[in-house]
Amino acid sequence: MGAVRARSGALRSRLAVLLALLATLACTAIAHAEDGYDLWLRYPPLDARQAPVLRAHAAELVAPASTPTQRALRDELLRGLGGLLGGAPALADAPRRDGALVVGTPASSPVVAGLGLDLADLGEEGYLIRSVRIGGHRATVVAANDDIGALYGAFHFLRLAQTGAPLDALDLREAPRLALRVLNHWDNLDRYVERGYAGQSIWDWHRLPDWRDPRYTDYARANASIGINGTVLNNVNANAQVLTPMYLEKVAALADVMRPYGIRVYLSARFSAPIEIGGLATADPLDPAVQRWWKDKADEIYRTIPDFGGFLVKANSEGQPGPQDYGRSHADGANLLADALAPHGGVVMWRAFVYSEEEPDDRHKQAYNEFVPHDGAFRDNVMVQVKNGAIDFQPREPFHPLFGAMPRTPLMMEFQITKEYLGFSTHLAYLGALYEEVLDADTHVQGAGSTVARVLDGSLHGHALTGMAGVANIGSDRNWSGSHFDQANWYAYGRLAWDPGARARDIAADWVRMTFSTAPAFVAPVVDMMMASHQAVVDYMTPLGLHHLMGRGHHYGPAPWVEGGPRADWTSVYYHRATAEGIGFDRTATGSDAVAQYAPAVAEVFGDVTRVPEDFLLWFHHVPWDYRTQSGRPLWDELVHRYTRGVDAVRGMRATWDGLASYVDAARHAQVATFLGIQEKEAQWWRDASIAYFQTFSGRPLPEGYAAPAQTLEYYQALEFPHAPGDTR
Amino acid sequence: MGAVRARSGALRSRLAVLLALLATLACTAIAHAEDGYDLWLRYPPLDARQAPVLRAHAAELVAPASTPTQRALRDELLRGLGGLLGGAPALADAPRRDGALVVGTPASSPVVAGLGLDLADLGEEGYLIRSVRIGGHRATVVAANDDIGALYGAFHFLRLAQTGAPLDALDLREAPRLALRVLNHWDNLDRYVERGYAGQSIWDWHRLPDWRDPRYTDYARANASIGINGTVLNNVNANAQVLTPMYLEKVAALADVMRPYGIRVYLSARFSAPIEIGGLATADPLDPAVQRWWKDKADEIYRTIPDFGGFLVKANSEGQPGPQDYGRSHADGANLLADALAPHGGVVMWRAFVYSEEEPDDRHKQAYNEFVPHDGAFRDNVMVQVKNGAIDFQPREPFHPLFGAMPRTPLMMEFQITKEYLGFSTHLAYLGALYEEVLDADTHVQGAGSTVARVLDGSLHGHALTGMAGVANIGSDRNWSGSHFDQANWYAYGRLAWDPGARARDIAADWVRMTFSTAPAFVAPVVDMMMASHQAVVDYMTPLGLHHLMGRGHHYGPAPWVEGGPRADWTSVYYHRATAEGIGFDRTATGSDAVAQYAPAVAEVFGDVTRVPEDFLLWFHHVPWDYRTQSGRPLWDELVHRYTRGVDAVRGMRATWDGLASYVDAARHAQVATFLGIQEKEAQWWRDASIAYFQTFSGRPLPEGYAAPAQTLEYYQALEFPHAPGDTR
Repeated sequence: MGAVRARSGALRSRLAVLLALLATLACTAIAHAEDGYDLWLRYPPLDARQAPVLRAHAAELVAPASTPTQRALRDELLRGLGGLLGGAPALADAPRRDGALVVGTPASSPVVAGLGLDLADLGEEGYLIRSVRIGGHRATVVAANDDIGALYGAFHFLRLAQTGAPLDALDLREAPRLALRVLNHWDNLDRYVERGYAGQSIWDWHRLPDWRDPRYTDYARANASIGINGTVLNNVNANAQVLTPMYLEKVAALADVMRPYGIRVYLSARFSAPIEIGGLATADPLDPAVQRWWKDKADEIYRTIPDFGGFLVKANSEGQPGPQDYGRSHADGANLLADALAPHGGVVMWRAFVYSEEEPDDRHKQAYNEFVPHDGAFRDNVMVQVKNGAIDFQPREPFHPLFGAMPRTPLMMEFQITKEYLGFSTHLAYLGALYEEVLDADTHVQGAGSTVARVLDGSLHGHALTGMAGVANIGSDRNWSGSHFDQANWYAYGRLAWDPGARARDIAADWVRMTFSTAPAFVAPVVDMMMASHQAVVDYMTPLGLHHLMGRGHHYGPAPWVEGGPRADWTSVYYHRATAEGIGFDRTATGSDAVAQYAPAVAEVFGDVTRVPEDFLLWFHHVPWDYRTQSGRPLWDELVHRYTRGVDAVRGMRATWDGLASYVDAARHAQVATFLGIQEKEAQWWRDASIAYFQTFSGRPLPEGYAAPAQTLEYYQALEFPHAPGDTR
Repeated sequence: MGAVRARSGALRSRLAVLLALLATLACTAIAHAEDGYDLWLRYPPLDARQAPVLRAHAAELVAPASTPTQRALRDELLRGLGGLLGGAPALADAPRRDGALVVGTPASSPVVAGLGLDLADLGEEGYLIRSVRIGGHRATVVAANDDIGALYGAFHFLRLAQTGAPLDALDLREAPRLALRVLNHWDNLDRYVERGYAGQSIWDWHRLPDWRDPRYTDYARANASIGINGTVLNNVNANAQVLTPMYLEKVAALADVMRPYGIRVYLSARFSAPIEIGGLATADPLDPAVQRWWKDKADEIYRTIPDFGGFLVKANSEGQPGPQDYGRSHADGANLLADALAPHGGVVMWRAFVYSEEEPDDRHKQAYNEFVPHDGAFRDNVMVQVKNGAIDFQPREPFHPLFGAMPRTPLMMEFQITKEYLGFSTHLAYLGALYEEVLDADTHVQGAGSTVARVLDGSLHGHALTGMAGVANIGSDRNWSGSHFDQANWYAYGRLAWDPGARARDIAADWVRMTFSTAPAFVAPVVDMMMASHQAVVDYMTPLGLHHLMGRGHHYGPAPWVEGGPRADWTSVYYHRATAEGIGFDRTATGSDAVAQYAPAVAEVFGDVTRVPEDFLLWFHHVPWDYRTQSGRPLWDELVHRYTRGVDAVRGMRATWDGLASYVDAARHAQVATFLGIQEKEAQWWRDASIAYFQTFSGRPLPEGYAAPAQTLEYYQALEFPHAPGDTR
């Protein structure tokens, strides 16, 4: 601190400013290193340019606190504004000066009621944010029909403040386009997380219900801030024990924590639970005793959790029990549970990720074949939950042919946020770009503009029950998601579940500003890097429509050579079909004809090697090595080019990030930099191993200027990773 | 902040003080809640009474920083003193005023060299702390022969400062009584921790060697602060893969982090590794190819980790492979590895926790019977690592009969810090009291005073190679140990490994002051509570010498009814032997005669039902239900009394803690309070289930005034905990 000189009158105010500033600086220095725990809700002090703007719009806070949700809302605003401004605004019953922030519903707040706002079309979860005058004072009002809408609105206001958005002349109206915006935790009861790369499950079942980890509240806050309103607590590969009284008591404790934040809990239900914990001899959905058991179980659940959301079910898939074990259909199975839940308002989310015991000619076609015949046979409170693509969360897939193909059934999107097939948590891959590509995809089932997003939001086929599920990337790691940038995927998922038409780039920009810095010289290159990162992963792992080439079981690293084992569609060679002549899976009429599952306008494009987007070339076509690609290069050369381009892109990300150290705290910068180093090393490994392997088929030399693989194919094939995280078990 | 009035001259200094104060206050408010991550190294600002005392002895810091250890030392002092004083002291090359803190070795510091201190008997790890005058200035010197001794001394000085100890006229000399002070991590390569109740393994193998989590450094700091100088990274139920090049590279990265803190890394070696990863057909210790393989492996390890500590081995125990698979002895097995390590200075820690494939007449006798015949047959760099008691880390056990029984072999103590049999991490049980009881136990092998501590420190039988191992309670939980009070067990273990004669109560007092508060009105009741907590657990779980009555496999909760299964000595009934006539395991001459393994003076006492300490009554004797105990009560009544007393003690701990809320931050107070609530509930469960069960044998009513069990025996027997943490797998 330099010398301070002051005299008489102005002393007090100068001192106050100085003290606040010093306190802030000191805290920044002494407080714990930024470790990512605070996610995008960090609320660091705004800079000298932004602080006065916010202060002028948050001079005082008028917000009721009579309900748990209202208290959560007010606490968040006090925390957020307090952090951003270096001190929380004063609380007031009504605006007494310019710059009040007024939050509430007509029922909770006389001030809001007095404004006579038009809230009719906002529903229960929507809100508006508007610059108004109240009693002659400038004010900002955040108004909604329900407490939860007001909470969402408060988070939106905080986002505007955090990102340095203008706060004058606001006139925003927001309501979610999807009703259910749900996280799926693939968390086992022993805290192991299947496909989890961020530590253990955050659900500490053993110490529940007594110990309610404060982390649960922070989880709820983070989710509410992006509009997520449901969470399925346990793995779809479910253990029936979660439905026993001992566990339901624990589930109820979690529901209590979530409730003020508008988040309902759901459970994955094991279809054979009536046998395993019910003592019945069968789980046949048409058996009256089974039906009785599920009804009783639902009644029991709702006695302790009145707002329980419902069941998620993985049935007759990868060894899970299901209705087909009794010769019944998926509809029979789903309706069994739906009938039990219906009196309480619960829903069934029935997964379409199925494949039969027998190997199909093309796994791509299985879900469509099994589900389309049952369109219209499901109860009103059943949704069919469909993965974004027909195979399994590959770095890039064409949209699932089920979207648009079941007009009488509400379809729910299942995205994977955890990066099972995208390098785990050390690879920087912004999935907003992936989600956007799928949501924007046009099914053409009702002509152009029949996007997947419009299937989901019900507008295409007139459904009110709508939703999106994201397989969570959340674990006990201090930074929640295993890496700082993987938080962006959780964030983007939530924002797109709220509005499937939102732009991934805008979302990334918001996230970067809230998570790291609002400095334009930082935001622009980082957003560019994020937006390009998805393509980079596709390029160095599975370019040109290749897919499912990861290590067997754990899915870590390249293994295009995987063959043999229990079923062909769990191998790599099944999918790439490389021969001396060419490579790719012929899914046209000359092959498996999976393209016929798409609407004709789509099928024509995908099925035509000259029209298919090159990103899906080898997904739908088996193509000779010398096939001339759009770049003019022969296919082999193009393949090598794309693998190499992917590695180069990661190298570019490293350079970008290394140049931005001055904008980020040392701890987070170092971790991201280290992880980018790992990503570059592994991208190179992917490229080299893949090229070494496919070259044994193409028999061609690498094009001029492209480096040979660093090691022999045998070296790559000998690598083993028996303890890679997240494998099924 | 109130109004600040100041004028002219004094303004600057007043402002400085005020700003420092404000910054401190603001930080306390804004920084993250105390979550236990900082352990006993929190360094919060001292109060107005203590701060000037420290400031007068840390006005400036004279400490070299040319080596990694020196930098770690200086960084710790700057961090510690900076935190305690609200600002780090100035650095200086030599004392320029009163109150310098001078730290270093004669080689590293000319100032220290100039003092001509007598350091001869301090060894490599010892240090002295002395108040001196240097060039006419008061100073405190922390001096050692080696950097690591200086680091230990610096932590000791910080402890004095943290606990508010006097800093005048210091004249301390410290050197460790044991050479190897080691943590044993029962951590698997997939991050599962066997008997772990604090989350996953902190070793993030997948992201090593590239990502060196800052937590590793904090782990090293914490261990160095209590003198721990070794860590066995992986489970004794070992996977050979940790010895492959891929993992050794990761181990080397951890060794790099630990090295500046004086901590060597060790590995658990799977005896059959030559087969599993070496491609040999045998692991026979007398096979030359096997010997060659281990020599080559040791050479390979030392090439990357020149200070590698050595191997820990669990052989021929609970299904692990070992030399007996080839008809060889434990000595043959240990010497095989010892010969491979010897050229590099490594040691073998060979566990004595063995029991044969066949059920023994008394498992208690097994280790003694197997190891005593080999006394003198082990190489000089082999230690036999012996659990504190002969069964398995029960809440209370008599000391292991091996202590004192192998005079020609260095014996290492194995304590369990993780609370496998003591309620996991939610029960408050201070193990310092348990460790002290064992270390103080008198083996009488060379007459009175032949304590276990003197067996361990080598003074009884003239060994220089000495050591203690503690099975770590450390995991990925934010607070490291699963609960705040379990940190005290890690702490106490380290302090007792340094000095097995230290008093558990003093250690607890230090820990409480550093971890929570130095306020005497807080320290006294909390230390009392901690000291009494071990007896409370013994009382509500296994009073009067009962043992091994926990739930099968997971060891959670009461299950005295466990019988059947693969072997009798894995059941409860094997140990309590309750009948209609009485209860207890007769280990006298009329029974298994395990008492004969102790020195005659001890055997006489343990073997005599009238002289055996009542805490071990049922450990050594089968006693009728109406046997009159020292209290005058019949055995049955005394049993009920002790069970009840245990529950009452926990109730007392709750009341004590609830009354101390004003001394502790809200977050930590709440977690401890919640856990104590769980402990009371589970103590009641232990008492009720045990009484309900044993009553079926005693056939006696509960004594007057003692409540009946809350539930039926059948209720308790029906409880299942398939997902309890930490079970073997």
